[in-house]
Amino acid sequence: MEINAVNALTYEDFVKLFGNVVEKCPLIPAAIWSYRPFKDLADIEAHMREFIHGLPDSGKEGVLRCHPDLAGRDLQSGTLTRESQEEQSRAGMTTLDSAESLHMSSLNTEYKERFGFPFVICARLNSKADIVRQLSERLNNDRATERERAIEEVTKICSLRLRNIVLSDIQTKL
Amino acid sequence: MEINAVNALTYEDFVKLFGNVVEKCPLIPAAIWSYRPFKDLADIEAHMREFIHGLPDSGKEGVLRCHPDLAGRDLQSGTLTRESQEEQSRAGMTTLDSAESLHMSSLNTEYKERFGFPFVICARLNSKADIVRQLSERLNNDRATERERAIEEVTKICSLRLRNIVLSDIQTKL
Repeated sequence: MEINAVNALTYEDFVKLFGNVVEKCPLIPAAIWSYRPFKDLADIEAHMREFIHGLPDSGKEGVLRCHPDLAGRDLQSGTLTRESQEEQSRAGMTTLDSAESLHMSSLNTEYKERFGFPFVICARLNSKADIVRQLSERLNNDRATERERAIEEVTKICSLRLRNIVLSDIQTKL
Repeated sequence: MEINAVNALTYEDFVKLFGNVVEKCPLIPAAIWSYRPFKDLADIEAHMREFIHGLPDSGKEGVLRCHPDLAGRDLQSGTLTRESQEEQSRAGMTTLDSAESLHMSSLNTEYKERFGFPFVICARLNSKADIVRQLSERLNNDRATERERAIEEVTKICSLRLRNIVLSDIQTKL
């Protein structure tokens, strides 16, 4: 979709289309509709980032808590959002063998007990091995550092999901 | 559920149970999980209010934009959330005759064009006649006044939805 078409959307159609660019947080795209007209994709991304980074610490943790575990319960029960299903699948999370699956599950549990939110990483930008390694490493962070680190991942996921909906300037000019 | 049971919930179960106390905004209960342990129902309510009122204006409008129209498209197509369906039904929004339905639809459209968010009112605390009257009256507000007015209604809806889940101190002592 080109930026002019995005700017012409009612808030209802905007929220329907962009509602899951931040996992299960339609509040966020619904909020940034207030900043129309957008100049381009980068402008939408900047407003998203600004909104997310402007949330209080509890709000940032709230955003994280709306995310599913990687290779977790929602994947097994088929209740992932479409976007998350695609991303986890591309990163190989849907085809773990039983040892890998147990390992992920145990790391996820340890992480959630330590931080009170799930491990979030942009699965599209990382291989299965990267994901496991980063999950182990990030377990050593303190909570404040890890909150910011995970929020950075949320904004990367958001940017890639936005690119699935809105054409970038470069694409438009091709 | 008693407050001790609420305090014992994992964030995952908390978000599942409280996820829609603010319509389609699981981010908000997910955020206030950070403030456990809660003293009582009033304490949860206070954190919810504080979080919502602490959002920037765009965020407040975002919360409002996650709400359906009263007697609108979602009601007609059966895509309301369970909570909203119950509330609209009790307020008589599900049994409007065709003249009433047209009137609501035309007022809703006028309101959304004026403010860029839907008319939100705590349907459980208002009769059908009250709702129509207030919708007409509130159309005369300026945007900033109306945003705050509508957010007050969101917090009322939230309080009543919370009371469906958590026992108040008074109920606990009975």
